[in-house]
Amino acid sequence: MPENHNLCTPRILKGFRDIFSHEYQARRWLISTVEKVYERYGFAPIETPALEYVDVLGKYLPECDTAEEGIFAFRDRDKEWIALRYDLTAPLSRVVSLYPELPRPFRRYQLGVVWRDEKPGLGRFREFYQLDIDTVGSASMQADAEVCCVICDVMEALGIAIGEFMVKVSNRKILNGILEKAGIAAVNEKGELTPIAMTTLRAVDKLDRLGMPGVIELLGPGRKDESGDFTKGAGLTPPQIDMIVNFLNLNIPQRENFLQELRKLVGDTKSGQEGIQELTDMDNLLRAVGYLDDRVMFDATIVRGLSYYTGPVFETVLTKPYRDEKGNERFFGSVFSGGRYDGLVERFLGQKVPATGASIGVDRILEAMKCFGKIKMPKATSQVLVTTMDANLTAEYQKLVFELRRAGIRAEVYLDKGGLKKQLKYADAWDIPLAVIVGSDEIAKQQVTIKDLQRGRQLAQEIKDREEWRKGQPAQVTVARDQMLSTIQQMLGN
Amino acid sequence: MPENHNLCTPRILKGFRDIFSHEYQARRWLISTVEKVYERYGFAPIETPALEYVDVLGKYLPECDTAEEGIFAFRDRDKEWIALRYDLTAPLSRVVSLYPELPRPFRRYQLGVVWRDEKPGLGRFREFYQLDIDTVGSASMQADAEVCCVICDVMEALGIAIGEFMVKVSNRKILNGILEKAGIAAVNEKGELTPIAMTTLRAVDKLDRLGMPGVIELLGPGRKDESGDFTKGAGLTPPQIDMIVNFLNLNIPQRENFLQELRKLVGDTKSGQEGIQELTDMDNLLRAVGYLDDRVMFDATIVRGLSYYTGPVFETVLTKPYRDEKGNERFFGSVFSGGRYDGLVERFLGQKVPATGASIGVDRILEAMKCFGKIKMPKATSQVLVTTMDANLTAEYQKLVFELRRAGIRAEVYLDKGGLKKQLKYADAWDIPLAVIVGSDEIAKQQVTIKDLQRGRQLAQEIKDREEWRKGQPAQVTVARDQMLSTIQQMLGN
Repeated sequence: MPENHNLCTPRILKGFRDIFSHEYQARRWLISTVEKVYERYGFAPIETPALEYVDVLGKYLPECDTAEEGIFAFRDRDKEWIALRYDLTAPLSRVVSLYPELPRPFRRYQLGVVWRDEKPGLGRFREFYQLDIDTVGSASMQADAEVCCVICDVMEALGIAIGEFMVKVSNRKILNGILEKAGIAAVNEKGELTPIAMTTLRAVDKLDRLGMPGVIELLGPGRKDESGDFTKGAGLTPPQIDMIVNFLNLNIPQRENFLQELRKLVGDTKSGQEGIQELTDMDNLLRAVGYLDDRVMFDATIVRGLSYYTGPVFETVLTKPYRDEKGNERFFGSVFSGGRYDGLVERFLGQKVPATGASIGVDRILEAMKCFGKIKMPKATSQVLVTTMDANLTAEYQKLVFELRRAGIRAEVYLDKGGLKKQLKYADAWDIPLAVIVGSDEIAKQQVTIKDLQRGRQLAQEIKDREEWRKGQPAQVTVARDQMLSTIQQMLGN
Repeated sequence: MPENHNLCTPRILKGFRDIFSHEYQARRWLISTVEKVYERYGFAPIETPALEYVDVLGKYLPECDTAEEGIFAFRDRDKEWIALRYDLTAPLSRVVSLYPELPRPFRRYQLGVVWRDEKPGLGRFREFYQLDIDTVGSASMQADAEVCCVICDVMEALGIAIGEFMVKVSNRKILNGILEKAGIAAVNEKGELTPIAMTTLRAVDKLDRLGMPGVIELLGPGRKDESGDFTKGAGLTPPQIDMIVNFLNLNIPQRENFLQELRKLVGDTKSGQEGIQELTDMDNLLRAVGYLDDRVMFDATIVRGLSYYTGPVFETVLTKPYRDEKGNERFFGSVFSGGRYDGLVERFLGQKVPATGASIGVDRILEAMKCFGKIKMPKATSQVLVTTMDANLTAEYQKLVFELRRAGIRAEVYLDKGGLKKQLKYADAWDIPLAVIVGSDEIAKQQVTIKDLQRGRQLAQEIKDREEWRKGQPAQVTVARDQMLSTIQQMLGN
C-alpha cells in the first residue's frame, strides 16, 4: 500500500506553463524560419545569461516606477540584487558597453526567454520568448528601413501573405514637433523626454484600448475608469489637445500622401522637420527595394509605450480578425515591434550610441498562426510503432525498429507490457501514423503486418457505425519481411 | 562632454557568460544533431518553466544537504519558496505526476538551461544547457539498452567515431549485492538506500579523483585531504572493503567475460542476481542490434553520485586525451550519463513508476569537440558585405544587397560612415568572406568589383612581406553588373 500522507503536491507556478511536443515543434519551426531571415540580412546570433544585476537591467518596463517592480528580483549570496531579465534590449546594451572591442556596427539577433512578474491573466504569461534584431552603431535610416524589410520578409516566410499584415511606422520626433508647435517643451537639455511629454506619450499609447475620448481625457485633466480609479492627465489646454488629436486622426494609407499632410501639421519645428526627413528617407529606401504601401505604412497613432525610443518606431498588426470564445471579432495586438533608441547605452558609457531594432513576440504570433490554421504539428515524433506480441521475440522487434531508424524513419518499439489493443491505443494517443505487427505466425512465414493507423482513424470517423469495417481491416497490409522497409517508406510518402 | 559621474558599470554575474555568433552556431548545430537522433527513436520534445516551487524540485543535488543549497532560490510575492531548476529530471517527475492523463510509456526529450549556485571555477559555469531523454512507464531493459544505443548514435552523428568514445554501464543492484554479501544492509524496507550504502556510493564515485587508496580510506574510518579537512568514512571492516575493491578492480573489456567474472563475485544475493540478469538482458539486446563491445562496455566503477538511481547506470567517456594549458594530458569527464530511477515520482504519487534516461552535457561536449578540432563556425552570418562609397548611391546599394538576399545569399550593406579601409576592416573583424565594391565609376560602366576577402586574408598570410601583393589585388574581380549574382554564387561555391 502506498503511504499517502506526506506526499508533495505536483504544481506549477501561476502564469507559467508546460509545452508539449506539437507546440514545441511548431515553435521550433517558427523560430528557425525567423532566424533564417535574420541571417539573410547578416544579423549574427548572441546569447546572454538569464540572470543580470538589477541596476544593469535598468528600469525600462512601461508603467513600473521602481527597478524591482514587475520583475523576478532577489539578492544573491553576496547580497547584491539580481533578477531574471525582462527583455533582451537591456542585456544588449550591457553587452555593447562591456565589450568596446566589438566591431561596429554590431548587428545581432537574440532568441531568449524573458520573465515578468506581472499579474497572470488569460493568455498572459510570466515567461515567454523574444527573438530580437538590433543594429548598434549606425545612425543611418537604412538600418531602420531594413528592420521594416526584415519584418515583411519574416511574415512572408511564415506564410502570412501581403495583405494579411501591415507594418505601421511613425517617428517620436514628430510627436515632439507637434508638442513644440503647441508650445510644450518635449525634451530637456539632456535630450530626455519631459514629464509632460511622457504623460502625453502614455495617453496616446492607450488609444487602442480607450478610444479617442479616453485619450482626450488623459491629455486634459485626467480620467476616471469604470472602477472609479482616477488617472491624472497631462493637463494640456483644449487648443493643445486639438493639435494632437488632428495629428492622430491623420489616417492616410499612402506613405507619400501621409508625408504631404504631415508637413502641413508639423510646421517648422526642428524636431518635427527631422522626423519628417527620417520618414522620407525610409520611404525612399523602402520604395527602391520594392517594399511599397501594401506592407509598410505610416501611422501617427503608433508611439510605443517605452520611454527610450528616440526616432522611428514600428508596430506590426495582423489585418485579419479572429473570433474569440464568445464569437466576437477581435484582433491580435502588435506581433513585431520596435524602434530607434540612440540613448540606451549612455547610462553605461556616458555617450550616445545610435541603435535601432525590433522584437517578434514568438508566442503571440504562434497563437495567431494556430488560430488562422497556418500551423499544425503532430503530437508524436515517431512515424512507426513496432508493437510487441511475444516476449520471446524482443530481440526480433529491436532488429525491426533499428532497420527503420537506420533508413532515417522515426520509430519506436512499444516498451510497456500489454495486449495489441492497449498498444494501438497508445499509438492513437500520440498520433503515430503506422504500426508494425509481428507475432510468431508472421515470423514463421517471414512476414510483417503494417497498419495505417492514420487512415484507420479517418475511416473510423467516416463509417464508424458499420460493423463490416471492423472485419475488413481496410487500412492494413501484410507483406514479406524484406518488403517492410520499402512498403513503409511508400506509405509515409517518402 | 559626457558626464562620467553616476554611470552604471556594465558587468556580468560570476560564473555566467555571453555567447557570441560562432559559439552559438556551433551549439545550435550540436543541439539539432542530437535532437534528430532523439526523434529517430521516437522521443517527443517538451518544455517546462525555468522557475519551479522548491519543494517540487526536491533535494537531489549531490553533496547538498538542504533543498536551497546549491540552487538559486528565493521567495515569490506570496512568500512561497521558488527556484531556478537545477536539472530537467525533477521537472519531468513533476510533469508526469501533474498530468496523469499523459499516455505511457511517456518518452520525452527536453532541451533546457539549468542553473546551479555553486562556486564558479575554471570552466565551471552556473548556467548551462542539458538535453535529456527519458522513458517513463517502462520497466523493460529494452528502454535502458535503447538509451545506450541513443548515446552511441548521438556520438556518431556528432562525428565522434567508434573507438573515440565508450559508453560505460553498471547497475546499482550489483553494488547493493556486494554489500549484502559482505553483511551490510544496502536498502531499507521502503527500498531506499541506507546511510552506509549512500556513503559507500559517494566514496566509489570519487575513484576518478582520489584513486583507489583514497576510496579505501573513505570506505574505512575516513580520509584527511591535503587541506587537513577530514571526511568521515563508511566504517567498513577490512574484509568488507576487500570485497568492494575486488569488485571495483573487475576491469574486463568484453561484456560477456565481465558478466562471467561478476557472477563469481556477487554470489546468490537477490539484489546481485537481479542486477546481473538486467545487465545480461541489456547485453543480449545490444548484441542483437549490433552495438558491440567496441562502444558499450560494463564497468564496475560506474556508480553515479545521485541517490535516486535504482538499476542500470550509464556514463560516456571520450577515450582521447587532450592537453591543457600546461601541456599535461587530461581527459574530459563524462559527457552523457544517466540511469534508471524507478522511485522518482513516488514522493508525488505514493507509488513507483519505472523510468530511465540520460542527459548530454551540451556545453562540455561542445568544449571537447572544439578542442579536438571537430567543429568550427564563422563569426558572421553574412557571406557578402556591400560596401558604400558614395552617399548618393544608397538606394543602389540597397538594390544590390536585396538582389543577393532574394537569391538566398546572406548579405549586408555597411551601415556606418567611413572609408573603404574601415569597411574592409569591419568585414575582416566579422570573418565576412566577400565584399562588393561599387563607386560612381562602376555605376557609369555598369560594373561591380567583388573582393574575395577570405582568399585575400590567406594570401596576406602567405606572402605578407612582399610589396607586389599590395598592388596586384590578386583576390578581386570586376564584372558586369548583371554578372554579379552568378559570380558571387560561384565564388561562394554554391
